[in-house]
Amino acid sequence: MDLGENPNSRHSTFSLPPFELRSIPYLSETNPDLPSLPNPISQSPYYSPSPGFYLSSSDVILRHILFDLSSPPAPPLVAFLRAGPRRTIRFDTYEVCAAIVTCGGLCPGINTVVRELVVGLWEIYGVRRIYGVPSGYRGFYSAEHWPLEPRVYCIGGDGTMRGAAKIFGEIRRRRLRVCITGIPKTVDNDIGIIDRSFGFQTAVEMALQAVHAARVEAESAVNGIGLVKLMGRSTGHIALHATLSSRDVDCCLIPETDFYLEGKGGLFEFLDGRLRSNGHAVVVVAEGAGQRLIPRVESEQRDESGNPAFLDVGSWLKEEMKRWRERDHPGELFTVKYIDPTYMIRAVPANAADNLYCTLLAHSSIHGAMAGFTGFVSGPVNGNYAYVSLEEVAEAKSVVDTKDHKWAWVRSVTNQPDFGKT
Amino acid sequence: MDLGENPNSRHSTFSLPPFELRSIPYLSETNPDLPSLPNPISQSPYYSPSPGFYLSSSDVILRHILFDLSSPPAPPLVAFLRAGPRRTIRFDTYEVCAAIVTCGGLCPGINTVVRELVVGLWEIYGVRRIYGVPSGYRGFYSAEHWPLEPRVYCIGGDGTMRGAAKIFGEIRRRRLRVCITGIPKTVDNDIGIIDRSFGFQTAVEMALQAVHAARVEAESAVNGIGLVKLMGRSTGHIALHATLSSRDVDCCLIPETDFYLEGKGGLFEFLDGRLRSNGHAVVVVAEGAGQRLIPRVESEQRDESGNPAFLDVGSWLKEEMKRWRERDHPGELFTVKYIDPTYMIRAVPANAADNLYCTLLAHSSIHGAMAGFTGFVSGPVNGNYAYVSLEEVAEAKSVVDTKDHKWAWVRSVTNQPDFGKT
Amino acid sequence: MDLGENPNSRHSTFSLPPFELRSIPYLSETNPDLPSLPNPISQSPYYSPSPGFYLSSSDVILRHILFDLSSPPAPPLVAFLRAGPRRTIRFDTYEVCAAIVTCGGLCPGINTVVRELVVGLWEIYGVRRIYGVPSGYRGFYSAEHWPLEPRVYCIGGDGTMRGAAKIFGEIRRRRLRVCITGIPKTVDNDIGIIDRSFGFQTAVEMALQAVHAARVEAESAVNGIGLVKLMGRSTGHIALHATLSSRDVDCCLIPETDFYLEGKGGLFEFLDGRLRSNGHAVVVVAEGAGQRLIPRVESEQRDESGNPAFLDVGSWLKEEMKRWRERDHPGELFTVKYIDPTYMIRAVPANAADNLYCTLLAHSSIHGAMAGFTGFVSGPVNGNYAYVSLEEVAEAKSVVDTKDHKWAWVRSVTNQPDFGKT
Amino acid sequence: MDLGENPNSRHSTFSLPPFELRSIPYLSETNPDLPSLPNPISQSPYYSPSPGFYLSSSDVILRHILFDLSSPPAPPLVAFLRAGPRRTIRFDTYEVCAAIVTCGGLCPGINTVVRELVVGLWEIYGVRRIYGVPSGYRGFYSAEHWPLEPRVYCIGGDGTMRGAAKIFGEIRRRRLRVCITGIPKTVDNDIGIIDRSFGFQTAVEMALQAVHAARVEAESAVNGIGLVKLMGRSTGHIALHATLSSRDVDCCLIPETDFYLEGKGGLFEFLDGRLRSNGHAVVVVAEGAGQRLIPRVESEQRDESGNPAFLDVGSWLKEEMKRWRERDHPGELFTVKYIDPTYMIRAVPANAADNLYCTLLAHSSIHGAMAGFTGFVSGPVNGNYAYVSLEEVAEAKSVVDTKDHKWAWVRSVTNQPDFGKT
Repeated sequence: MDLGENPNSRHSTFSLPPFELRSIPYLSETNPDLPSLPNPISQSPYYSPSPGFYLSSSDVILRHILFDLSSPPAPPLVAFLRAGPRRTIRFDTYEVCAAIVTCGGLCPGINTVVRELVVGLWEIYGVRRIYGVPSGYRGFYSAEHWPLEPRVYCIGGDGTMRGAAKIFGEIRRRRLRVCITGIPKTVDNDIGIIDRSFGFQTAVEMALQAVHAARVEAESAVNGIGLVKLMGRSTGHIALHATLSSRDVDCCLIPETDFYLEGKGGLFEFLDGRLRSNGHAVVVVAEGAGQRLIPRVESEQRDESGNPAFLDVGSWLKEEMKRWRERDHPGELFTVKYIDPTYMIRAVPANAADNLYCTLLAHSSIHGAMAGFTGFVSGPVNGNYAYVSLEEVAEAKSVVDTKDHKWAWVRSVTNQPDFGKT
Repeated sequence: MDLGENPNSRHSTFSLPPFELRSIPYLSETNPDLPSLPNPISQSPYYSPSPGFYLSSSDVILRHILFDLSSPPAPPLVAFLRAGPRRTIRFDTYEVCAAIVTCGGLCPGINTVVRELVVGLWEIYGVRRIYGVPSGYRGFYSAEHWPLEPRVYCIGGDGTMRGAAKIFGEIRRRRLRVCITGIPKTVDNDIGIIDRSFGFQTAVEMALQAVHAARVEAESAVNGIGLVKLMGRSTGHIALHATLSSRDVDCCLIPETDFYLEGKGGLFEFLDGRLRSNGHAVVVVAEGAGQRLIPRVESEQRDESGNPAFLDVGSWLKEEMKRWRERDHPGELFTVKYIDPTYMIRAVPANAADNLYCTLLAHSSIHGAMAGFTGFVSGPVNGNYAYVSLEEVAEAKSVVDTKDHKWAWVRSVTNQPDFGKT
Repeated sequence: MDLGENPNSRHSTFSLPPFELRSIPYLSETNPDLPSLPNPISQSPYYSPSPGFYLSSSDVILRHILFDLSSPPAPPLVAFLRAGPRRTIRFDTYEVCAAIVTCGGLCPGINTVVRELVVGLWEIYGVRRIYGVPSGYRGFYSAEHWPLEPRVYCIGGDGTMRGAAKIFGEIRRRRLRVCITGIPKTVDNDIGIIDRSFGFQTAVEMALQAVHAARVEAESAVNGIGLVKLMGRSTGHIALHATLSSRDVDCCLIPETDFYLEGKGGLFEFLDGRLRSNGHAVVVVAEGAGQRLIPRVESEQRDESGNPAFLDVGSWLKEEMKRWRERDHPGELFTVKYIDPTYMIRAVPANAADNLYCTLLAHSSIHGAMAGFTGFVSGPVNGNYAYVSLEEVAEAKSVVDTKDHKWAWVRSVTNQPDFGKT
Repeated sequence: MDLGENPNSRHSTFSLPPFELRSIPYLSETNPDLPSLPNPISQSPYYSPSPGFYLSSSDVILRHILFDLSSPPAPPLVAFLRAGPRRTIRFDTYEVCAAIVTCGGLCPGINTVVRELVVGLWEIYGVRRIYGVPSGYRGFYSAEHWPLEPRVYCIGGDGTMRGAAKIFGEIRRRRLRVCITGIPKTVDNDIGIIDRSFGFQTAVEMALQAVHAARVEAESAVNGIGLVKLMGRSTGHIALHATLSSRDVDCCLIPETDFYLEGKGGLFEFLDGRLRSNGHAVVVVAEGAGQRLIPRVESEQRDESGNPAFLDVGSWLKEEMKRWRERDHPGELFTVKYIDPTYMIRAVPANAADNLYCTLLAHSSIHGAMAGFTGFVSGPVNGNYAYVSLEEVAEAKSVVDTKDHKWAWVRSVTNQPDFGKT
C-alpha cells in the first residue's frame, strides 16, 4: 500500500529500563521432596498439546505498558509470570485433596467460579476429593483432621485476600504441604493490579437498568429527579461505568471525588440548572460517596464485620434534596424517585463475558496450584492471565483515577462541574 | 506482611530490546499552514483539566507485552501513540465540517458510535456542521462540492478500512485539508491489533441464548443434537467465546481448524460417543468453518459485494447428520434442531460494556482528528486506547490462535478431539 | 368417539333469571342533531368488512357467569354492551378534535395506549386534530378556547375516573357536544368490573425478578430473610400473582388479610419455623398491608394528592424483624435483605400481552367515541371487550377475594397460616 | 353520583334460553365402591377453609356469554362444572399412585406443570407414589404391572388428547379404578373451548423479539424485507398476537386466510407499495400459511408422526420474493432477511403469566382427580377454571376467527388487504 511516502519515516525507536519479574512462592521452597510428574493433559486422548502449549517460568507479561517517553519512568517496572498449564505438576492427582472456601456476600459469577474449579479439577487433573467449606474461614475449624496435600482455593473480598495471605504465611512457617490460591471476589472492582474483578460487568449491566428506570421516572414528573445508589464503598467503578455506558446521567458522585450540596459550585446549584433547562435530572451516587457529609448519630452502628457502618448516602441525599426544594422553591412541584438496586444486582446470574472470565480464572488457578505454586492469585493483567503473589494483591487497591481520561469522559458526558473545587 | 522470608529473593530483573514507536500521519505534513489553537476543553466552565490530562506525542503504549525470557523476542517490538485529548488542536471549530459514513451490515453499537461522534463533536469541540453520508462510500458522489476542512469518519468492516486507507492515500497526494479516521465495525472480531471490535460482547451474549436453547431442545429429544451456527466467516471468535461462556457445548467448529465427518477421529464418531453417553449433544459451528468440505454447485453464487458466497455450513451439517444416522443407525430415533440466530444477534442493542466501548472509541477518534492526526484508527491495545495507522489495521487480521491456551480451554471444556489431525 | 355409553346422559339443563343490560350514555340524548354517517372503515380499500363485523346495541356480554345452581343467584344479573366498531358514526371526522389527558404516575403500557389512540384516530377514522393535554386535568385551563366537537380521552387511576365522571356530568348538564371516555390506569389492578388493568402483567413479570433476587440473597446467608415490597395500596393483586407465579415465596402479606407479628400464630412464629427447617425465608408484602400495625408519628405526612401517606411497611417490617431476632435469638446470625423494586417495575416497557391489551383498549375506546357513546370506559369483561359506564367503574373496586380459591392456592403454595385468625 | 338524570332509564332486561350443563365422567359410575373421605385440606394446620371454599357439582360457569339480543341464540347454550377442591375425595391418599406422561415437543411451562403436579399431590394430598412415565405413551408398556388406583395425568397436544380419550374409553370399559385427566400442551394455542393453552403468552413474547429484529434488519437495508416465520400449523394465533402486540408488522399471513403472490391484490403488489412508501417491510407468516401454494416434490416427506410434512413456507417465500424482484426490478438493491425463531421460542422458560397459569392448571387437575372425576381436562373458560370432558376437548379446535374483530384489528394495524378476495 503506497501512501506516497515512506511510512517508516514516521517511526522512531526507544529503550526501556529493566523490568523486575515479580515471581510467586513455590511450594518446593518449603517442601523440597515434592514429586515431579507429567501433566495429565499430555496423556489425554483428546489433546495433543502443540509446542508452546505449556507455559514455563520464563513466560512473562509486562505490567507497566504505558510510558511518557519525555520523562524517565518511575522504577520499578514490573512483570508477572503468565498463568496457564505447566508441563510438570508437583502432586499425585490421586492423593490431592482440594478445598474451596468462599467468604462474604453474593457476587454474579460466584457459582461459575466454584463449578469450574470442581469440573476443572475433576476432568482435567482427575482430582476426586474436592470439598466445599461452609460458612467462610470459620468452616475449617469444624473439619476433624487435615488431609495430606490440599489446595485451598479462597474466594472473597479484600478481607479474604488478607486472610488468605496470613494463612499462607502460617502454612509456610509450618512447612505444610498445602498450596493456597485466592480468587478476588468483589463486585465493586476495587482489587488492584488485575484488570477487573469477576461479576463487575454483570453488575454494570444491571445498574444500567436502574439508571434507565430513574430516567423514565424523572422524565415523567414535573421537576423530577431520579436518584440511583450503586455499589462501591471505596471506589466508584460501577457508578463510573454505568454513567459512561448510559446517556441518561446528569451527575455521577463517587468516593474518589468530594462534593458539597449548598452554595456556588455545589450539587444543588447544578441540579437547579438542569431542572430549569431539562425539567428533570438523573443522579448516580456510589454508596461510598459523601460519607463525611452525612451527620452521624452517636451510636453509629457497625456492620457485621465490625467496620464502621456505611451511612446510607442515597436516603440522606433524597431527604436533603426535598429539604432544599421546600426551602428554596416552596410551592413548586418536585419529586425525587430513589432507586437502590443493590440486591437485584448481586443476585443476577453472570453474563457471557463474566462467565468466560470466571471459567478462565478458575482454570488458571487450578493450573498454577497443580504446578506447585502457592500464595498466589491469578487474574488478567493488561488482558492476559498472570500469577500475582497474594501479598501484592492484598495490598493493592483499585480506585477511579479522577485525573485520568475515563473520569474526564464522565465529565464530558455529564458536563458536571468539579464539585470539590471551589 | 512477613511471610517468613525476604520475598524479594524470588524477584529477578530482565531487559528488553528497543521498541519501535509506530506513529500515525499528521495532516500538517501535507498542510503546513494549519493553525494551532488551544483545546476548547481548557475553556470549559465545567472542566479544570488537571496536569496530565492532555496527552502528547511522547505518550505511548506497548503493543508487545508477552515475552518468553528464555529466547530473544522476534523484532520488531512495537509501541503506539496513546489516544486522548491534546492540548493543541489544528482546526478552527467554527469552520470544521464533519462527515460520518457507515458501510456494510448491522452491528450492535453502531448507533452508539454515531451518536457519540455527533454529541462529542458538538458538545466538546463546538462543531456545528456534522453530516451523515447515506449508502456508504457511494454517498459521497451525490454531494455537490466538498467543504473546506472536513473530517471523515469511516465506520465499517475490513473492506471499509481498506477503502479508507485508499481514500487517505488520495487525499494525501492531493494535499487536501481533510483528516480521515476509521472505526472498525465487524461483529466477528476479526480486526487485528486492537483488542476487540465493538458489538462483539453483545453478540456473544445473544449467541449464548441460542446455545442454551439448543441444549434444551437437544435434551428433550431421544438422541437429540442441537446445532447452532454463529457468525464468523474467517474467524471463530464468537463461537469460541460462546462455547467458553457456556457449559452446554460438546463441540465447537471454527474456520481456524479443520475437521472431517466420517471415519476414525471424525465428527460423527465423536458425536456418536456423546449420544451414547449423554443421550444428546450440542454443536456450535462458525459460519466460515468447513467451507472446503461442502460440495459447491456449478453456478456458485456470489454475494452482494462480489465475494464467493459463503456456503451454509449449518444446513449442510444438518443434512449430513441426518444422512449419517439413517445410514448407520437405521430405525433409531434421532433429531437435529438447527438454530441460526444471526439476524436476532445483529439487531440487538449494545450491552453496557459495548456501549461504554463505543463511547470511548468515538471520543478517541474525535480527539485525534481535532489534534490534526489523519489516516488512523483508534482502539484499545492491551486495554488502553491507542492510535494505529489505517494501513496497519487494514492489513492486520485477528484469528483464533489454536495453538494458544484459550483454544485449549475450549478443548478442556468440550473434550473434543483434534478433528483435523489423524 | 364411543365411550361405552351415551355421554349426554350426564347432561342436565337449567335456566337463569333475567339479566339487566347496563347501557351507557349516548351523546344524542343531549345533542339530538348529531349527524349519522357511514363508518369510514367501509370505504377503506383494504377492508371489506364481512357481515357481523360491525357490532350493534343488541350485542351484549354477560358479566355474571358463575352460578351455584343449588341456590338462586343474587339479583341483578348484569350484562354490558360489547365494544367494537359501529356501522354508523356520529361525527364528521374532519371536524372532530380529540384531546388525550393522562393523570398520575407511570404505568407500563401508557405509551402504547397513547400511541394507539393517536394512530387509530388518524389512520382508521382520518381524524387530524389530536391534542395531548399536559400536566393532567390542570392542563385544560391553559387552553384558550374549546374546539367544537372534541372527544376527551382520560387515562388515569380511580381518582381520574371519578374526575372524568364529574366532568361528564357537567358536560351533560351543559349539553356540550363532547364525548368523554376513560381508560383506567392502575398498575395495582384495583379497578373493578374489568378483568384487569393494563401494565399489570408486566408489573408481575418484573416483580418476579425481585422475588427471585430475594430468594438468592436469602439462601446465601445464614438465617437469611428476603423481604420484597410490591405495589398495591388497597389490593394485593401484584403480590398474589407474583407469589403464585413463583415457587420462591414463604409468606405473602396483602391488605385484604390481617396479620400480627408476635405470639402464637403470628408472623414471627411462622418465620422462625421456616428458618429452622429451611435456613432462610422469603416474604412478599404489598405496600398497603399491615398499615394499621405501623405506629404513626404525630405529623403524619400526606402524599402529594392529600391522601394520608402510606407508611412504609417494608422498612418497618425489616426493623421489626431485626428487633425480634436480637431479642429472641441474641448472638445468632441473622440477615434481612429488603428489596423495593417499585420504580424499576413502573418504568419498564409493556410486555407483549400488555401491548396487545393496550392496543385493543385504545381501539375499543375510539370506536365507541366515534359511534357517539360517552361517559364510558372500555375494557375486557370475562375476556371480551365491553363498554361500561364511567360511574359504574368509578364506584367498583377490585380486591383479592380471600375466600376464593386463588388465595387458597397462595396458601397451598406457601403453607402460610391465617395470621389474622387466632 | 348525580349525572342529571336517572341512569337506570337506559337499562333494559332480557332473558336467556336454558343452558345445558356439560358434566364430566365420575369414576364411581364404573366403580361404585369408592370410599368417601374428607379432603385432607380440612385437617391442615394452616388452612381453615372458609364457607364456600369447596366447590360442589352445582357450581357452574357459562361457556356462552356473548349474545346478539336481536336474534335467538343458536342452541345449545352450554355450561361447565367449575374446577377446584371438593369437600369429599374418593381415594385413600396413602394408596394412590399417580403417573405423569408427557408427549410431543417442548413447550414453555411444561416443567412448571409437572413440578406443580408433583408438589401439589405431595403437599396438599399427601400422595407419596408419583411416577414420571418416560418417552410418551410408549413408556407404559415398559411398566411391569399396574398399580391399583393410579391417576394418569396426560400432558400433550391434540394427538395426546385423542389418545387420552381412547385410553379413558378403554379404562371405562374394563371398569378399572383409574382416573385420567389431560392437560392440553400446544404452544400454537389451537385447543378449543379453553381460553388459551399454557406457554402461549411466553411464545408470543419471544416471537416479538424476532419481529423486532426483523424490523431493524429491514430498516437497515435498501428495499429490505424482514420475514419471520412463527409457529402455528393449523392456526395463526401466535402470528396474530405478535402482530397486534407490535407496531412493526406490515403483513401477517395465517393458515385461516388465503393469499396469492402475483397480480392485482397479491402479496407482491402490496409489498411493492410498502417498499416504495417506506423503503422496507416486515412480513410475519405462520408456519401453516400458504401450504397449498408451495409446490410439493414427488416424494413428499412425512414427519416423525407420519403426518404429511409441513413445507417450509418461510424458505419458500424468501426464494419467491427474490425471484420476483430479480424479474420485476432487475438491478435494484433488494434484501430479504429471514428469521425462524422456532427453537429459541420453545426452549425459553415460562413467563410470570404462564407460570401462574401452569400452577393453577396443575392444581385444578389434582383437585378434580382426587374428587373422583375422570376423563376430563381442566382449563380456564371465560377466565375461570372449569372441568371439560376429554372427548369434548379432543374434538374442539381453536382457529383465528377472521370474521371477528381481532383479525380486523390486525388489518387495521397492518392495513394489509384481503389477499384472498379478488
